[in-house]
Amino acid sequence: MKTIIKGASVLLADGSVKETDIFVDGAKIAKVANMADASADTVIDGKGKFAVPGFVNAHTHASMTLLRSYADDMNLMDWLQNKIWPIEAKMKKDDIYWGAMLAAVEMIRTGTTTFADMYGDMEKVAEVAIDSGLRAVLSRGIIGSAPNGEAAFEENKTLFADYHGAGDGRVTVMFGPHAPYTCPPDFLRRVAEAAKERKAEVHIHLAETKGEVKNCLKDYGKTPIALMEETGILDCGVLGAHCVHLTDEDIALMKKYDTRAAHNPGSNMKLASGIAPVPKLLKAGVCVGLGTDGASSNNNLDMLEEIRLAALLHKVDTLDPLAVPALEAVRMGTEYGAKAVGIQKLGKIEEGCLADIVLFDMSGAAWMPKFDLVSLLVYAANSADVDTVMVNGKLLMEKKKLLTLDEERVLFEANRCAERISAK
Amino acid sequence: MKTIIKGASVLLADGSVKETDIFVDGAKIAKVANMADASADTVIDGKGKFAVPGFVNAHTHASMTLLRSYADDMNLMDWLQNKIWPIEAKMKKDDIYWGAMLAAVEMIRTGTTTFADMYGDMEKVAEVAIDSGLRAVLSRGIIGSAPNGEAAFEENKTLFADYHGAGDGRVTVMFGPHAPYTCPPDFLRRVAEAAKERKAEVHIHLAETKGEVKNCLKDYGKTPIALMEETGILDCGVLGAHCVHLTDEDIALMKKYDTRAAHNPGSNMKLASGIAPVPKLLKAGVCVGLGTDGASSNNNLDMLEEIRLAALLHKVDTLDPLAVPALEAVRMGTEYGAKAVGIQKLGKIEEGCLADIVLFDMSGAAWMPKFDLVSLLVYAANSADVDTVMVNGKLLMEKKKLLTLDEERVLFEANRCAERISAK
Repeated sequence: MKTIIKGASVLLADGSVKETDIFVDGAKIAKVANMADASADTVIDGKGKFAVPGFVNAHTHASMTLLRSYADDMNLMDWLQNKIWPIEAKMKKDDIYWGAMLAAVEMIRTGTTTFADMYGDMEKVAEVAIDSGLRAVLSRGIIGSAPNGEAAFEENKTLFADYHGAGDGRVTVMFGPHAPYTCPPDFLRRVAEAAKERKAEVHIHLAETKGEVKNCLKDYGKTPIALMEETGILDCGVLGAHCVHLTDEDIALMKKYDTRAAHNPGSNMKLASGIAPVPKLLKAGVCVGLGTDGASSNNNLDMLEEIRLAALLHKVDTLDPLAVPALEAVRMGTEYGAKAVGIQKLGKIEEGCLADIVLFDMSGAAWMPKFDLVSLLVYAANSADVDTVMVNGKLLMEKKKLLTLDEERVLFEANRCAERISAK
Repeated sequence: MKTIIKGASVLLADGSVKETDIFVDGAKIAKVANMADASADTVIDGKGKFAVPGFVNAHTHASMTLLRSYADDMNLMDWLQNKIWPIEAKMKKDDIYWGAMLAAVEMIRTGTTTFADMYGDMEKVAEVAIDSGLRAVLSRGIIGSAPNGEAAFEENKTLFADYHGAGDGRVTVMFGPHAPYTCPPDFLRRVAEAAKERKAEVHIHLAETKGEVKNCLKDYGKTPIALMEETGILDCGVLGAHCVHLTDEDIALMKKYDTRAAHNPGSNMKLASGIAPVPKLLKAGVCVGLGTDGASSNNNLDMLEEIRLAALLHKVDTLDPLAVPALEAVRMGTEYGAKAVGIQKLGKIEEGCLADIVLFDMSGAAWMPKFDLVSLLVYAANSADVDTVMVNGKLLMEKKKLLTLDEERVLFEANRCAERISAK
């Protein structure tokens, strides 16, 4: 299967923008150049479109999209104990599937091509990735201290055995110990061993709140990051979600072990968790991707919004209007995100890279005038401008029409599930 | 002219949401109730739509939309002196008109029904308001210390004489002394007198940056707000743009004089100006509206984005997840905004209020599930979901089709103007 995207304005790997063609052969980008003479199975008219790498959502809980707007503007423990945990307890495999399907519709429509997910019943989310055509990095969220901790650990091993490399390689699997405060050190040591045996990586929440860091210091005399070093987790290759409250020593450890951060500005703002030291991390050479977190704490899966927030929030936090420039924010949502979730040759429009490409329609007023397309994308555009989405060389959406999903049915089923789990 | 919006989910003035009808008679909302038996000239099907008050953009420079993406990610003085001021010097009346027309297209499409504007050649912006059907609160930006300061002051007087109450009352005029650091105290005193003679109000930039406050203290021994009291400006009724760096005494003065703030979270973040003490202002009973500022420092005119930023930014700033709840953020963008720009009976869907109404299409994935529509609007929805827009009882957009503007021509002319002013 060969596809040519003709005459789009293309965001190249070096950050420049050029009007040219993209030649996709199979799952990969074969050429970024004028292809006047080439033949292809499909030709997409790129005129007036901005071709950018597909967005990588480096941290989410897709099935929680079913809980969107169920509970907001509450204190964290009140929200969790009285609203989220009770309703989550009612979620069955059917809800996990349709919740993730609802997420898939939203992700494709807003230009996300890869998502890193941590939740339960993850084989259902793997099915969603396989069915929808999205790329997914899946981990079974494991609360080591919970009664089902061992069972969840086993499920993660089974998930790895069954789905790592599935869906033409679009699905990969990590281990998902939830957090240092929900998994005791000995448990984490066992997770690290299991991960190393399989050459699997680890997706874990790290240093999200001040309280977590304080308790970690009290209980173990170490910060969450330092504790992860001691337990061997950092040896596995880690995707650390949040990383809000870090010491300089933590940052040095992250750099040493090539630990990647998934920054979730929207969630951190909404839950009042704090502001991650992103400019510092980037300066130290730590890889920082972007995530939406779950839709019950964001409340959408709009990666363009996270890119914009990343660009804006750190400027005002550091009082430096150059803190995170537009192009750097885009890279966090694409190239750095791909690295953060552990996928090689992804997140750039470049020969040899995986063909995950999004075309933005630039015909609307917010794209006028066109002095700088990267600036327009980051500061002005709307995710509803996403026109066409390709993953692994296959079109998932063309001219705003979803090609792999029955949108009407997904919305119907998701609504049915939401009504059931929220029924008194 | 009578219109019925039938069976919409309506955001009522008390913050509750009810499925009902809205009966519009002339420029006003005559009834919010089931209107099964009423007849009307136009019936709009509100099923599946969320009817909210039109957004009030309490501070912008519409014509600067022509400079969108021209210069970003720069230090303030570098940006102003080397990019913005030189290109602004090339702008002629034709550019002012088409820049504001480009803004009008974007504003209508994203649900803004009123905008408060400060710039030059404001009779052209008045024409745009009259032609587009938008509601506008216009002021001539006056740099008192500039060579054209007196001329600009005269232009503001003429603008008031010619346009205050124009366009069926949709256009009102304020005086627009730019800021305390560009208008000396004696000049401000004269502006205050001229405003009082006409019972006009004042739109002015106040306490936007730390440097401004520091210089004001050095030059006059007073904060910008206190200096405005001394010069008589506060007596006029003031729409103060930004109000980022305030003392408790400033806040008390604002309360005393009923000075209203136009909070611009997107601009303040992008320019790294700082974070306004919004929860404190609201708690003190100061009216806080929301604005986008100009599109060269935002870079769009999307008020839903500002509402979302207002809800998110102050949570993380105060580390309080209840700091600015969703409904309060909506009110800042509607009801409080209307008060901020000095228009009575606006910003609520209530009998007797002006019929400025926006219908959001709730059919997309981001509106699912529908546990809480206000939460969905603030945290999940996309401004591209705006389906129908009414101002003063007249439809400006229906089912995403603009009814008062020739969009294609506006984009063409705006592009032509942008090319001319940016030509080397």
